[in-house]
Amino acid sequence: MAIRALRWDGRVLHLLDQTRLPDRVKTVRCRRVEDVYLAIRELRVRGAPLIGIAAAYGLALGARSLFELTESARRLISSRPTAVNLAWAVRRVLASVARSTSKDLRAVVLREARSIHREDAERCEAIGRHGAGLRLRRILTICNTGALATGGIGTAFGVCLRSRATVYACETRPLGQGARLTMWEAEKRGLKAVLIADGAAAATLREKRIDGVVVGADRIAANGDTANKIGTLGLAIASREFRVPFYVAAPLSTFDPNTPSGAKIPVEERSPAEVSARFPAWNPAFDVTPARFIRGFITETGIIRPSSSSWPR
Amino acid sequence: MAIRALRWDGRVLHLLDQTRLPDRVKTVRCRRVEDVYLAIRELRVRGAPLIGIAAAYGLALGARSLFELTESARRLISSRPTAVNLAWAVRRVLASVARSTSKDLRAVVLREARSIHREDAERCEAIGRHGAGLRLRRILTICNTGALATGGIGTAFGVCLRSRATVYACETRPLGQGARLTMWEAEKRGLKAVLIADGAAAATLREKRIDGVVVGADRIAANGDTANKIGTLGLAIASREFRVPFYVAAPLSTFDPNTPSGAKIPVEERSPAEVSARFPAWNPAFDVTPARFIRGFITETGIIRPSSSSWPR
Repeated sequence: MAIRALRWDGRVLHLLDQTRLPDRVKTVRCRRVEDVYLAIRELRVRGAPLIGIAAAYGLALGARSLFELTESARRLISSRPTAVNLAWAVRRVLASVARSTSKDLRAVVLREARSIHREDAERCEAIGRHGAGLRLRRILTICNTGALATGGIGTAFGVCLRSRATVYACETRPLGQGARLTMWEAEKRGLKAVLIADGAAAATLREKRIDGVVVGADRIAANGDTANKIGTLGLAIASREFRVPFYVAAPLSTFDPNTPSGAKIPVEERSPAEVSARFPAWNPAFDVTPARFIRGFITETGIIRPSSSSWPR
Repeated sequence: MAIRALRWDGRVLHLLDQTRLPDRVKTVRCRRVEDVYLAIRELRVRGAPLIGIAAAYGLALGARSLFELTESARRLISSRPTAVNLAWAVRRVLASVARSTSKDLRAVVLREARSIHREDAERCEAIGRHGAGLRLRRILTICNTGALATGGIGTAFGVCLRSRATVYACETRPLGQGARLTMWEAEKRGLKAVLIADGAAAATLREKRIDGVVVGADRIAANGDTANKIGTLGLAIASREFRVPFYVAAPLSTFDPNTPSGAKIPVEERSPAEVSARFPAWNPAFDVTPARFIRGFITETGIIRPSSSSWPR
């Protein structure tokens, strides 16, 4: 069964509320830019490519004037700092407006949002196809990178799907995107999936004959260092120990040539209350995996090695 | 404030119900051996040294005859497979009965149980003292290894306490012994502690200037390979990457000369329902860390290196 994380009805942006899944399948209706801002900030919609798409549609809700559009863009970009796709999508919409001769701002914004959405779905298919070429039968992954994170079948999840792999999914504390979202998507798509506690990842790599670790990305710096969900760095280090290849699946829009290395990627720290209602906690949402741990980037144009001369610029 | 995980009132064994902490501080009253068996199995009492102590007292509830005592011993040892302290404590009580000339089986059992309990408290103090000599100011740990896991101040937690260290505590999914028990103990003892999601351990090692990772142990094989709470192996691999020394704090009763290597340690797999009420899951309770990752074992007799000639035999 296909999953629709986002729908534009001509007037309102409907987002599947990902904080309630899988127990409740509810939608959030966004009528104002601020609704989209809050939905992104509160992770009702999440996943680097999908928040870019949501923000692109969201701009249509605040496009009555060029001034309002610019303010809307600024507001939406500020909702979360790490994923580069968000700023990428918003800037692409602004650029399309700048190029257009039409007076109907909203129509121009919507046309570009729909293009971004459709192209992301196509990119996911291409990523899935290139990933399937690796012939990984048992894949370990983290977070959610499927239809709930993109405009299509997903990045790392798309690779799992097109590989018909057995997926070992890390719970992905504190918010459980693996436990709640990836397992739900796998069930809906008929993909065999086994949930593990995040701490069981090393044991899984050692004992479950994993062919590859495949993860998504929120930002890939110019040197190949990759920001992704907290826990990814530990997976990369453990996968090297057990000689399991480690892949990052992401569209080229996740590559940020303006960030020279991982040290320059802003890492969002979220509220300690997400980890504990009672005790002090440190809650970084992402970590940065050095390029040297990464066997390859599975992109819509093929598999790129960190040292490759075909590195996107 | 001191924490009393276990109390024998002359007739009944009272156990602090660790599955309810920190939200509810309730005790389980054990009047029969089977009550103790279930309390250990259901993790109402847990921690390798403490389940040994609980089982030793538990034998007093089934000691009306030598036959009953032997059956009680067999039953209690079968409650959990990995921690060697359990069988060690039960066999030590049986040996004291075999040596004794007294007809009052129950009194002999109780005397030995009290000795085991008191000695464990002394061993914890000695472990804490030796560990404090390492002068670790910032310690990363996993699971709970304090008064809720031992007969005294704890093993790894005792090292944190006597070092007056700042503790970074892994949540320790699926049952949250770090999130619920270690954080509660730290609060009660006035120890500065910060909770992290298990997946944040590698980022913590990289960014929080951790001086050492200190963990407990459920069984240490003859070659130094160490079984401990699931997640420990990942910590050990990541700590090597970031050049943070990795220590195991455990009494000598945790060393098992009869198990040649980690490959021979039975690892308990628990119900998938502990990880997810809804989806398939793999739920190993422990993993095995190879000796080569371990800088030293902090024991009651001092710090032992895996290759040391003073290795316990």
